[in-house]
Amino acid sequence: MNIGFVGLGQMGHAIAGNVLAAGHALTVWNRSPDKADDLVAKGAARAASPAEAGNGDIVATMLADDAALEAVCFGENGLLSGESPALHVSLSTISLQLAERLEQAYRANGGRFVSAPVFGRPDAAAAAKLFVVAAGQADDLVRCQPLFDAIGQRTFVVGDKPSQANVVKLSGNFLIMASIETMAEALTLAAKNGVERAAMMEVLTETLFGGLVHRNYGKMLVEESYRPAGFAAPLGLKDMRLVGAAAEASRVPMPVLGVVRDHLLSAIAREGEDIDWSGIGKIIAADAGLG
Amino acid sequence: MNIGFVGLGQMGHAIAGNVLAAGHALTVWNRSPDKADDLVAKGAARAASPAEAGNGDIVATMLADDAALEAVCFGENGLLSGESPALHVSLSTISLQLAERLEQAYRANGGRFVSAPVFGRPDAAAAAKLFVVAAGQADDLVRCQPLFDAIGQRTFVVGDKPSQANVVKLSGNFLIMASIETMAEALTLAAKNGVERAAMMEVLTETLFGGLVHRNYGKMLVEESYRPAGFAAPLGLKDMRLVGAAAEASRVPMPVLGVVRDHLLSAIAREGEDIDWSGIGKIIAADAGLG
Amino acid sequence: MNIGFVGLGQMGHAIAGNVLAAGHALTVWNRSPDKADDLVAKGAARAASPAEAGNGDIVATMLADDAALEAVCFGENGLLSGESPALHVSLSTISLQLAERLEQAYRANGGRFVSAPVFGRPDAAAAAKLFVVAAGQADDLVRCQPLFDAIGQRTFVVGDKPSQANVVKLSGNFLIMASIETMAEALTLAAKNGVERAAMMEVLTETLFGGLVHRNYGKMLVEESYRPAGFAAPLGLKDMRLVGAAAEASRVPMPVLGVVRDHLLSAIAREGEDIDWSGIGKIIAADAGLG
Amino acid sequence: MNIGFVGLGQMGHAIAGNVLAAGHALTVWNRSPDKADDLVAKGAARAASPAEAGNGDIVATMLADDAALEAVCFGENGLLSGESPALHVSLSTISLQLAERLEQAYRANGGRFVSAPVFGRPDAAAAAKLFVVAAGQADDLVRCQPLFDAIGQRTFVVGDKPSQANVVKLSGNFLIMASIETMAEALTLAAKNGVERAAMMEVLTETLFGGLVHRNYGKMLVEESYRPAGFAAPLGLKDMRLVGAAAEASRVPMPVLGVVRDHLLSAIAREGEDIDWSGIGKIIAADAGLG
Repeated sequence: MNIGFVGLGQMGHAIAGNVLAAGHALTVWNRSPDKADDLVAKGAARAASPAEAGNGDIVATMLADDAALEAVCFGENGLLSGESPALHVSLSTISLQLAERLEQAYRANGGRFVSAPVFGRPDAAAAAKLFVVAAGQADDLVRCQPLFDAIGQRTFVVGDKPSQANVVKLSGNFLIMASIETMAEALTLAAKNGVERAAMMEVLTETLFGGLVHRNYGKMLVEESYRPAGFAAPLGLKDMRLVGAAAEASRVPMPVLGVVRDHLLSAIAREGEDIDWSGIGKIIAADAGLG
Repeated sequence: MNIGFVGLGQMGHAIAGNVLAAGHALTVWNRSPDKADDLVAKGAARAASPAEAGNGDIVATMLADDAALEAVCFGENGLLSGESPALHVSLSTISLQLAERLEQAYRANGGRFVSAPVFGRPDAAAAAKLFVVAAGQADDLVRCQPLFDAIGQRTFVVGDKPSQANVVKLSGNFLIMASIETMAEALTLAAKNGVERAAMMEVLTETLFGGLVHRNYGKMLVEESYRPAGFAAPLGLKDMRLVGAAAEASRVPMPVLGVVRDHLLSAIAREGEDIDWSGIGKIIAADAGLG
Repeated sequence: MNIGFVGLGQMGHAIAGNVLAAGHALTVWNRSPDKADDLVAKGAARAASPAEAGNGDIVATMLADDAALEAVCFGENGLLSGESPALHVSLSTISLQLAERLEQAYRANGGRFVSAPVFGRPDAAAAAKLFVVAAGQADDLVRCQPLFDAIGQRTFVVGDKPSQANVVKLSGNFLIMASIETMAEALTLAAKNGVERAAMMEVLTETLFGGLVHRNYGKMLVEESYRPAGFAAPLGLKDMRLVGAAAEASRVPMPVLGVVRDHLLSAIAREGEDIDWSGIGKIIAADAGLG
Repeated sequence: MNIGFVGLGQMGHAIAGNVLAAGHALTVWNRSPDKADDLVAKGAARAASPAEAGNGDIVATMLADDAALEAVCFGENGLLSGESPALHVSLSTISLQLAERLEQAYRANGGRFVSAPVFGRPDAAAAAKLFVVAAGQADDLVRCQPLFDAIGQRTFVVGDKPSQANVVKLSGNFLIMASIETMAEALTLAAKNGVERAAMMEVLTETLFGGLVHRNYGKMLVEESYRPAGFAAPLGLKDMRLVGAAAEASRVPMPVLGVVRDHLLSAIAREGEDIDWSGIGKIIAADAGLG
């Protein structure tokens, strides 16, 4: 397939590389063009604008936030200004509101829109081991499958409305944050009673909480290694704000969301913008007089 | 070894059966004596009092709450009234305060006390697949190991102070409750945006949250099967009260504990005492106008 | 003075009437022009656009939300398109972000901007008994004083940066909401123990909590009179969203804000959009199994 | 009347002095007898035991907590061991559970029990300006009225079941704590936006929140004067524990209770046992990076 790709940050660059490696014709665009150099060296075409990247069968976008995706869609020479509307697959973690707006905008101009945010860190992206959470019209999803196969280990279809993929992705990030919160509360209780954090965490992960999130973030909490940030607290806060906007729009009380949001604010206020989002563990311990 | 066993409820009966099956000499006592009949038929001796059950090498207790354990220890013909103090292994989910009181009482009368609460439901108990979380003096724990081997699949030693095992057990129960809470919040958000609960849960357990708690309780939340209760809400509330007492005594703020406690209260107030502790999922959905 | 007035809703209409009654020359504009008819009959001039209303010494605005104020400022023939920039006094409950944006926009075009939101319901507005909370440059505030005197019983100056008046106003609304929340929790506890709500509330207001908010909202909670709404729950939710945005921007954890926001969401989800914001009292009682 | 009085701490001593000053025959008992010396010098009789103090028409008790009241009632030569059961008026802030237990114990031995906790600090007690919140049988309350008149400025009858007075008293203390919490949150938001705490507090108390609690505690929060403690955080925590026990027993979710309890724990953990309960204001500011 002819696949366009917009957004060559750490995640996007790794994903685009796998699209190329899977044998697809790739056309890339990035705001800072030099990020595309090595992909071009390997055979990718360089587009002069998002719109030009959107002239193939599918165009995928991987951008940092709503504003960046809005810019490449609605801005000058944006994807929605192109003459031959493509199928746009958005891989970014964005708000439900933007997903809905894009769905309507594409419908209005004769194009198609699919939301397919991914779970996985940059190393999983590089290894084409992402989990893809997709939502959209069934025939659109079928057309996207070769792309998903090139970048991930498994695709989950969660609905026919694109924003439904976003609600699942945001919920997943909420649950990661909530797991960090609750593990940190329990580890602090244990620590103040003389139980080693590592001993406590071993019991949890070897018995009831053996999943990836508890293993990986449990390890960070045990080691209290919050810098350098793998995912900085302000980014976590942004995601929690998107969860909050979805909860408000659909009238869903989420009390634990309030708790983690406040701890992220406190982490940033007390520790600075460069702490990892798991750094709420440091705040939770400090609130109990530790550290 | 000569092992005494006090408390033949659903969990205790299954555990005692495995002690016997492992070839140990077993002496049992239960407030309602008929619960011991089948064990006696298989070769166990029947004690006339807790004190008599405590005359062997080790006496294990598995009781419903602090009050029941206090009664068999400090009551008439209780374990602490015996002349030849044994090594007492408490398997129950009790308060840190009681564990500390028992440790002191046994030290005062020349006996030994080990806390070894277990993770696992009745079916795991019957299959000798419990996880044993133990704390106490190292030599005492060595003496207990044949008992632990007879009833569980693995033993975790978390400290040399008995109550430390209880803080780990209580923390584990808190994390189960907190996981139910946060999954239910996320599932409600998804549901109000048209995502099937089953689809959402599949994404979570097949990617980031593959542990037992998320699989088992996730299934209950998807099926909304809260009755009959496997573990009734008032029992969950009791455990959360014990967590709260430990948090208060050691000065640890635990905001998510407050959230789950309130939801358990609401579940009991609105749904009755017979709902499962995962029934907070029903409350969380109802608070968002569902169901 | 020549005073322009934009926004003749329930509050704005009452305020503008007092400006006229105080002897000022008044020019009014409202999106629905008929709202101005009676004021014109009493001597006010009718402007054809916000910009025209802004040609006097001062222009005051009283609008429902950020969007409405943005429209009259930045829209076609808006206040900021006028040739002779006036002193703009914003009386609305708006976000800090918009207050800061307006301050900058006015500074850029040579005008002046003052924020002066008010406390008081429509009856206080009609009686010129509002409390005015003002912030801005000292000389600008002096110029505004005749206006404030015409509409309120007292003016509080809280800073020289306009958005500081908005943070005080939003904080006040948060405290009203929080007082409703906590009174409702206490009344529910009392009611479930057989204490009459009225008896409980009398003790509170006649001893420690004699202020207006506790008297007025306490009465609503005792009478459980949540409809028709004096201030509907979705408006309360909007204000709490603005508080949340301010808290997030300035990195301030506000756990009680999360609690009231969730109860507002639950009130709207379960009771509908037409319930008063004090209707969280009904939710809090229902969560305890009452009503 | 012949009035006995047990418990001559700071509050009790002041109250007993007013009983004497009002012309009643007073018999006093205190664990540390020297606290009674000046009252005896003024004409009070000294009892050798609580039981002896209970031989008059009415015996009033003012003690620090449940344990102290239990000791003087159920202990050796306690009030309930006396031969001629009196009418016992409990002025202390105690649990509902103890009030109910005492009601039953007095009914069983032919005596009468009234609960009448008071609002007011030691200076109000000394000035006979307490607010008395009373519950019990109507005829018993009539008999107590001369006592109430001697010590307070006003009596509120809230029910015929003694523990109902305690639920109102505990609710009042919860609302004080909650008001400190929410004012501190708002003041922190204001402070981080450059608004002076004093300016903010003046707006609040001069407009919507003019009651005693907001004036008095608002002043403490503005001055950030948390030591020496007027009412130490551990005492506040004890009261919140009693509120929590009442809420749990009557199945009432109280989310703001969880918030204040956690802040009290954090205040004690980070600042020590000697900080005033309003010291949660320091924690709330610190959580936002202030101070």
